[in-house]
Amino acid sequence: MSATTREQRIIGVVGATRAKRARFRDERITMAHGAGGKASQSLIEGLLLPPLANDALERLGDAGELSLHGVGLALTTDSFVVTPIRFPGGSIGELAVNGTVNDLAVSGARPLALTLSLVLEEGLAAADLRAEIEAIAQAAETAGVRVIAGDTKVVERGQADQMYACTTGLGELDPRARLAASALAPGDRILVSGPVGEHGMAVMLARGQFALEADISSDTRSLWPAADALLGAAGSALHCMRDATRGGVASALNELARASGVAALVREADVPVAPVVAAAAELLGIDPMYVANEGKLVAVVASGRAEAALQALRALPGCEQAAEIGEILPEPTGMVLVDTAFGGRRVMDLLAGDPLPRIC
Amino acid sequence: MSATTREQRIIGVVGATRAKRARFRDERITMAHGAGGKASQSLIEGLLLPPLANDALERLGDAGELSLHGVGLALTTDSFVVTPIRFPGGSIGELAVNGTVNDLAVSGARPLALTLSLVLEEGLAAADLRAEIEAIAQAAETAGVRVIAGDTKVVERGQADQMYACTTGLGELDPRARLAASALAPGDRILVSGPVGEHGMAVMLARGQFALEADISSDTRSLWPAADALLGAAGSALHCMRDATRGGVASALNELARASGVAALVREADVPVAPVVAAAAELLGIDPMYVANEGKLVAVVASGRAEAALQALRALPGCEQAAEIGEILPEPTGMVLVDTAFGGRRVMDLLAGDPLPRIC
Repeated sequence: MSATTREQRIIGVVGATRAKRARFRDERITMAHGAGGKASQSLIEGLLLPPLANDALERLGDAGELSLHGVGLALTTDSFVVTPIRFPGGSIGELAVNGTVNDLAVSGARPLALTLSLVLEEGLAAADLRAEIEAIAQAAETAGVRVIAGDTKVVERGQADQMYACTTGLGELDPRARLAASALAPGDRILVSGPVGEHGMAVMLARGQFALEADISSDTRSLWPAADALLGAAGSALHCMRDATRGGVASALNELARASGVAALVREADVPVAPVVAAAAELLGIDPMYVANEGKLVAVVASGRAEAALQALRALPGCEQAAEIGEILPEPTGMVLVDTAFGGRRVMDLLAGDPLPRIC
Repeated sequence: MSATTREQRIIGVVGATRAKRARFRDERITMAHGAGGKASQSLIEGLLLPPLANDALERLGDAGELSLHGVGLALTTDSFVVTPIRFPGGSIGELAVNGTVNDLAVSGARPLALTLSLVLEEGLAAADLRAEIEAIAQAAETAGVRVIAGDTKVVERGQADQMYACTTGLGELDPRARLAASALAPGDRILVSGPVGEHGMAVMLARGQFALEADISSDTRSLWPAADALLGAAGSALHCMRDATRGGVASALNELARASGVAALVREADVPVAPVVAAAAELLGIDPMYVANEGKLVAVVASGRAEAALQALRALPGCEQAAEIGEILPEPTGMVLVDTAFGGRRVMDLLAGDPLPRIC
C-alpha cells in the first residue's frame, strides 16, 4: 500500500516545550512516530534510548562517536523507505548514499566508507534494481566514499514497496571540529546552505496525488564539501551543524535549541525558498521550513566568524544561495521563534503530526 | 502477508560448479534471490557487485576491511526480516546483534560498536517493540558491544511484518588473523563449533505451518569467544572462518571451496546434529547442512593445528560439541563432497531453490 492515502496537513503547533526527556505513552506505533516530530522524539527518548543507554547514543547526534588508538571515528546509520523510489532529481539509491554521508559530514566527520543493506520486494524488476545500484555507485563516487560491505534480503510481494535500503557510514572525525548540539550560545548566527524544501516537495509531487505539477527537483547531494568549508572558515567558532532532513529546518532548530537550553530566532524573510517551492507549499498548506531537504545543512556559528563562514559556503557549487537566517537568543529556552514576513512573531515548534510521511 | 505460504522443499541440486563469476539473467527478483544459494550468488556477483566494484567488496568476505592510520578496521551490515519476530531461544533483536557481531568475529575482527536501524510497521504494539529493544540491549551487553547510533522509520500497516532491523558492526581486525576465503589448502581440516541446524528449524517450527512440535531452540549467540579461541590456538594456521547462517554449513563450504579453487569433503557421520533437529529435518525433507545457524561457525585450519583448535573450541561454554567434520582436497575444484553415513559419496552443491525463506 502506498503512503499516499495518509498525507496529513500540519496538525497545529503545541506551544509548550519541555526540557526533560519525552515519555512514550502510546500503545501502538503510528506513522507519526516516523515523521521526525514530537512523536518521533517521544519514541526515541522514551522507548528506544533507555535500554540502550550509553554516552554516544545519549548525545543524540547525527552520528555516534568512538575513539580507537587515538583516532576519532563516527558511525551513523539510516534506513530509506521513500516512495516512490524515483522522483525528479534523485532516487532511493542516491538518497541512501547522500543521507548517510551527510550525517557524517554534519558531525564533522570525513566520510570514509559505507555499507549497504537492501530489503527487496519479490517481483521487483531487475532493471529497477540495477538502476538503483548504479545510482548508488555514482553517488558514492561523487561523494568520495566506497561501499565496502553489503547484504540483501527478499520479502514477499506486497511488502517493502519495491525496496528499502539501509546505509551505514564510517567517518573520521575532523580535528578542526568542536561540534555539539549543546554548544549553541546567545548571539550565534544561524546559516542555511541553500534554499529549503525542495526534496520533500519533489517527492510529494512525484506521488501524483495532488492536481499540481511543478518543476521541483530533489536537492540530494553530499554535504561534506560544505561541512569542510565551514570547518575551514570558522574552526571552533562553528558550534553545530545539522542536515535538515525529516522535519526540515524547523525540526533541526528545535532539537538544537532544546539541547542547548537557548532559543532560536528565524527571520522568515531571509530564508531562501525557491519561488516554485514556495508556491507549491502554499497551495498544499505546508510550511517549507518543515519540509525535508537532502542536501542542505543548518549551521550555527559564533557571530565573529559567521560572515566568513557564509562567504565560504557561497563559494561552493550548489551553495550560492546560502544565507544567514537568524540568531540564537538566551530565551525562551528550548523554543524556536519566527519573525514573519508580515511583522509578527510566532512559535515554530516540533510538529505533532505527520505532513509528509516516507519522504526519505 | 506471512512467508508461510511460500515454503519450498529443496529443489534438487545442480551438479556443475562454475569458477567464474555468476551472471544475473532474471527479469524479476524472487524469494530465491534472498536465500543464500545459487540465485543469491548470481544476484550478488552478476548485478550488485559490478557497479560498486572495489577491493573490499570483491573479497566477498563477511565484512569489508579498511586501514586507517595503521589500524585495521572491519565493517559489516545485515538486515533482519525473520518471521515470526520471536521464536524459541531468541528473537529478531537478538539475531540483529549476534548476526552482525558474528560477521565481524569470523572476519577476525573484535566487535567494537553497532548501529541499529529499524523499519517499524504502523500498528506494532509498543510492548513488542520494547521487548525487542531490551533483547538488543541484553545481547549487546553479553557480546561486549555498544549500540552507538540508530534510526527509525515507520511504514504503513501490511508492510514490514511488524519490524525489520538492520545492524552494522564496526570491529578492529585482530593482529593474529590471517584469514581469507581464498586461503584454503589441500589437507586443511574443517571444524564446526557445535551442532548444526537449530536456528532455522526453530524458526520453521515457530511458524506453526507443520503439524510438528519439537523442543528446538535457536542457537543465537556471539561467536567472538569462539573466534578469539581459534585465533589463539591456531594463529596463522587458521585459514578461514564463516558463520553458517543462510544456506547453512553447506553453503558456507561451497563459497569457500569456490573462492580457494579446492574441494571440501565432509564426513556426514561426524557432523553434530541434535537428535531432535535430525528427526524434524528428516520429517520435513530438509538436509540440516543447509539449515541456518546463528551461533555456529565453520573453521578451516591447517592440519598441524587442527586438534589444538578443536580442543580450544571445546573448552568454551556452548562449543562442547565442536567437531572436525572433514578436510580439504585438491579437487574437484569448487565442489563440496559428502561421504554419507551409508558409505556413498555425493555432491553437496549450493541450493537452486529456497527451502527456508526469512529465517534471519
